[in-house]
Amino acid sequence: MTADPVLLDLNADLGEGFGDWSMGDDAAMLDVVTTANIACGGHAGDPGTMRSALRGAAARGVAVTAHVAYPDLQGFGRRFLDISPTELTDLVIVQVGGLQAMARAEGTTVRGVKPHGALYNALAHHDAQAAAVVQALRELGGELSLLAAPGAAVLAPARTAGINVVLEGFADRAYLSDGTLLPRSRPGSVLTDTNAVVDQALEIATGRRVRADDGTWVDLPVRSLCLHGDTPGAVTLARAVRDRLEDVGVRLEAAL
Amino acid sequence: MTADPVLLDLNADLGEGFGDWSMGDDAAMLDVVTTANIACGGHAGDPGTMRSALRGAAARGVAVTAHVAYPDLQGFGRRFLDISPTELTDLVIVQVGGLQAMARAEGTTVRGVKPHGALYNALAHHDAQAAAVVQALRELGGELSLLAAPGAAVLAPARTAGINVVLEGFADRAYLSDGTLLPRSRPGSVLTDTNAVVDQALEIATGRRVRADDGTWVDLPVRSLCLHGDTPGAVTLARAVRDRLEDVGVRLEAAL
Amino acid sequence: MTADPVLLDLNADLGEGFGDWSMGDDAAMLDVVTTANIACGGHAGDPGTMRSALRGAAARGVAVTAHVAYPDLQGFGRRFLDISPTELTDLVIVQVGGLQAMARAEGTTVRGVKPHGALYNALAHHDAQAAAVVQALRELGGELSLLAAPGAAVLAPARTAGINVVLEGFADRAYLSDGTLLPRSRPGSVLTDTNAVVDQALEIATGRRVRADDGTWVDLPVRSLCLHGDTPGAVTLARAVRDRLEDVGVRLEAAL
Amino acid sequence: MTADPVLLDLNADLGEGFGDWSMGDDAAMLDVVTTANIACGGHAGDPGTMRSALRGAAARGVAVTAHVAYPDLQGFGRRFLDISPTELTDLVIVQVGGLQAMARAEGTTVRGVKPHGALYNALAHHDAQAAAVVQALRELGGELSLLAAPGAAVLAPARTAGINVVLEGFADRAYLSDGTLLPRSRPGSVLTDTNAVVDQALEIATGRRVRADDGTWVDLPVRSLCLHGDTPGAVTLARAVRDRLEDVGVRLEAAL
Repeated sequence: MTADPVLLDLNADLGEGFGDWSMGDDAAMLDVVTTANIACGGHAGDPGTMRSALRGAAARGVAVTAHVAYPDLQGFGRRFLDISPTELTDLVIVQVGGLQAMARAEGTTVRGVKPHGALYNALAHHDAQAAAVVQALRELGGELSLLAAPGAAVLAPARTAGINVVLEGFADRAYLSDGTLLPRSRPGSVLTDTNAVVDQALEIATGRRVRADDGTWVDLPVRSLCLHGDTPGAVTLARAVRDRLEDVGVRLEAAL
Repeated sequence: MTADPVLLDLNADLGEGFGDWSMGDDAAMLDVVTTANIACGGHAGDPGTMRSALRGAAARGVAVTAHVAYPDLQGFGRRFLDISPTELTDLVIVQVGGLQAMARAEGTTVRGVKPHGALYNALAHHDAQAAAVVQALRELGGELSLLAAPGAAVLAPARTAGINVVLEGFADRAYLSDGTLLPRSRPGSVLTDTNAVVDQALEIATGRRVRADDGTWVDLPVRSLCLHGDTPGAVTLARAVRDRLEDVGVRLEAAL
Repeated sequence: MTADPVLLDLNADLGEGFGDWSMGDDAAMLDVVTTANIACGGHAGDPGTMRSALRGAAARGVAVTAHVAYPDLQGFGRRFLDISPTELTDLVIVQVGGLQAMARAEGTTVRGVKPHGALYNALAHHDAQAAAVVQALRELGGELSLLAAPGAAVLAPARTAGINVVLEGFADRAYLSDGTLLPRSRPGSVLTDTNAVVDQALEIATGRRVRADDGTWVDLPVRSLCLHGDTPGAVTLARAVRDRLEDVGVRLEAAL
Repeated sequence: MTADPVLLDLNADLGEGFGDWSMGDDAAMLDVVTTANIACGGHAGDPGTMRSALRGAAARGVAVTAHVAYPDLQGFGRRFLDISPTELTDLVIVQVGGLQAMARAEGTTVRGVKPHGALYNALAHHDAQAAAVVQALRELGGELSLLAAPGAAVLAPARTAGINVVLEGFADRAYLSDGTLLPRSRPGSVLTDTNAVVDQALEIATGRRVRADDGTWVDLPVRSLCLHGDTPGAVTLARAVRDRLEDVGVRLEAAL
């Protein structure tokens, strides 16, 4: 009798160019991940980059989420915007809808939503914005999953609304002992050593836990692991993570 | 034995505000028309104005088209943009998709596409851009109708692609003897006299013809009549047209 | 022997259209005010509206400030944006520079800066953003005045930097006993009764004080009074304020 | 008795990032050129990239022009926009003014204007747009030079208006026998062989002539040579051109 294999989804943010500008190596990352979060016009992503990323994902059987964001190209969606819940609900619907139409054109479907940047951070603690995103998911039909961080404020309203929530962890970010991320502003917040990143990925995958910056172990009950691909080094690291996970028999499979 | 009643669709461009800026009296026009062309972010229309216009249309049983446009808020989509066919196809898909998602949220559906402003004009003669819009309609599933002008270059490729084309005329614009509009740059291009506008609407509705600026009659085999609502006077005029058409027994009914 | 006349500047936010969209009655307000705060592309204001507002101001000898704002057309600059100080300094410089060039083309000059909406509010308490705006004023040459609210966080760094600060009050907003405005979210925050508005303007002009919502008198050592003009009623009110101030001998004169 | 040395300006388009997106290697190109055309918000260039490019230029004594463009970030200013002359004049003034303010903040000045992309092409033959740009230069004070192509429609009105015109050629583009560029859509329009590019640069510099695609020699009375830097190979090529020009004693000096 054999144990069930460990399942893990690998996700990355793709399609983050705009017009003539590109960001990261989408093709390389699409060979690594099982889910692609595709920019849909808020922080990046024009109709052409949406199509291109969707086509790449469809060709490889990679699942797709809409990487919704504040409408802030110049700030790449990384600056908090004090938008009203009504405005936020509306823009999520329209960003997702635009990507859905293009996904249909490319023979695939959008299976979930992953908020980007400052909006992702806001959903960790800003109840009104969290409720607004959940409201958008309800109005979008209730069948899209939400990719979110353990402990985020958005989890409770999402589950109450019957939204499928997929939790994600990070292989290359340091954690605090409460299971939240060490802020990027603090030293050591981003892991760059290949061994350290691969080890953290392995612990998350096989133990659903991570060692916090104070040395304690923290439970991290995630089904997905977020990988970065915006630098050449990041792609290599992502590849190393995937290879090691496969070596130990983790089954890489989209979570949504 | 009674003859079949004459059918006519009345359409108007609505939801053309953006953020705090408004344009026209949508509520008044929604009481007049049977089809609303709703701006979807190209020349006007943010997610909130889309929702508001869709809600108003849904409440009155008014049909909806996506009023797609070049991405040019400052120029209100009235300036020709020499966009590549690929880019045009992609942006039409995304604009329509955004409106579709919001339409579903408001319990209605988008039934067609009406290009706006300079794009509408381009489709009259610019074969590559016309083909690009038809390609978008195909990739959107082929079930959306296209609202277009008689004689436009887009008609042939649209019909070849199996797209349902709804032709429209204008009650308040002067026509040339070849059935095209007298350009806005020429004197007398816009009719402002109530009687003249109502009379032209009546001829279009009951005779499917219009008197050209040289006095000759021109066939105008249209199923829809476009009304304007961006000034208080325009709304009054639109109301007068509707009242008169109803008086003579024209059945006002969405064409798509 | 006669006393010096009381001096007061009347300012209003103008040029707040964008493309085909307009906002308020600039011409009417330019006949009322002595200073025009002209939108310069952040929350409103394209190159054409800038020129038009500048031309109107120049023709009437109305002083001009650059009405700088977060880059947020859809939100009309009314949503807080957590922009870095560096980014804020840079965008203020570019927004002001654009308006300055157009002012020169129209034979006038920009004499000051008035932050708009959420940025105005941020400068009341957000030290880093306040310092960033002051830094922009320094890099713009140090000769532009700053129009600000009494008690704002920006006052101290501005004065330290040698920036001329002009304080302003509001005739149509209710005040708290600490001299700050009753937030718009609270009932009674905006005065609409003509007599109440005119009386408050008169107290501010002649007594440099205002009666707070708890009935106490608060010192308001302002040199300028902000009037609103975005509704027909607002223009009438602004006109009434001006007429009454002139009746009692207040000398209306730009403060910068 | 020695002959006067041959003078040549080397110019390149820089500061063409936007927000998190970058384009080309500005630092490397600033070490090669004598004039930097800096994007000012039309096709690229946010306030931060403007400052950064200006700072780099100022540090190396590189002259600066404003690289004005149609307002089209997504199209990178490469799509013709049928903008009215009035609108074009206004936007050139505002784009230049924004860059001028930032240049003053960085201790340098904008000495000229170089239209970008589709606007550059329009000025070759579109009389109304050409006149509109000249009008902007007049309203900006008449002291900025214009960087343009030999034979362009803009030359005559610019000279009539007393604008200093600096003509430029291209080392890496094929020419027709009438002195205009072989369109990019035709094969062989861009030279990529290092020797061919260096040779063409040398002929332009020392002979003010170029060999057209039909083998004939064409006069090219230019004072500046445009180099590209948007790919690693382009930077190497630009460096090779500069080195060779210096080897033969061409004096590289800004033309404006």
